[in-house]
Amino acid sequence: MVRLIVLYSQPEDPAAFDAHYRDVHAPIVRRYPNLVSMRLTRADGVGGRPAAFYLMAEMSFVSRADLDEALASEPGRESGRDLRMFAQAGVTLFVADDEAATDA
Amino acid sequence: MVRLIVLYSQPEDPAAFDAHYRDVHAPIVRRYPNLVSMRLTRADGVGGRPAAFYLMAEMSFVSRADLDEALASEPGRESGRDLRMFAQAGVTLFVADDEAATDA
Repeated sequence: MVRLIVLYSQPEDPAAFDAHYRDVHAPIVRRYPNLVSMRLTRADGVGGRPAAFYLMAEMSFVSRADLDEALASEPGRESGRDLRMFAQAGVTLFVADDEAATDA
Repeated sequence: MVRLIVLYSQPEDPAAFDAHYRDVHAPIVRRYPNLVSMRLTRADGVGGRPAAFYLMAEMSFVSRADLDEALASEPGRESGRDLRMFAQAGVTLFVADDEAATDA
């Protein structure tokens, strides 16, 4: 599996962010071709410090090719445009290749 | 499960970073009490941009209480000191509560 990991910075208005994510953004992402699963996790802080991020979204695909195809698709491009509508606080994306992961 | 997620920024000398991680840091982390599993994943970029991070480490625990106990333990404090020895490029930590995760 390959995960597209999206880390959302703390929004100014969490309730508005959550509503937009649930009602607008997630439905677009669910239309990605090749999407195997999508997991949303709230980020908590460590050692008394607030978390560096508000929300982590993990989208799983069978391969990097499948992931790239999803991002290049119409819903992929739509989700990129939508990001700019509600993630003004900032967003960090990267890909984790779990096939190459090691259990240390 | 609860994951302690550590994102390492791109090191200046990746070979030295990898060697220190493998030979010094990972052995300390493996001594954490309550540690269920540890996964290391190289981060790749998206859309032609380099990844925001170099390496993601995910340490899994049964509960947040187990995780906090691990960080407060002697190996937990030792790993914190060791971070400052090899992760000069920067490190971002947060906790993902997978019990509260939603499949969207």
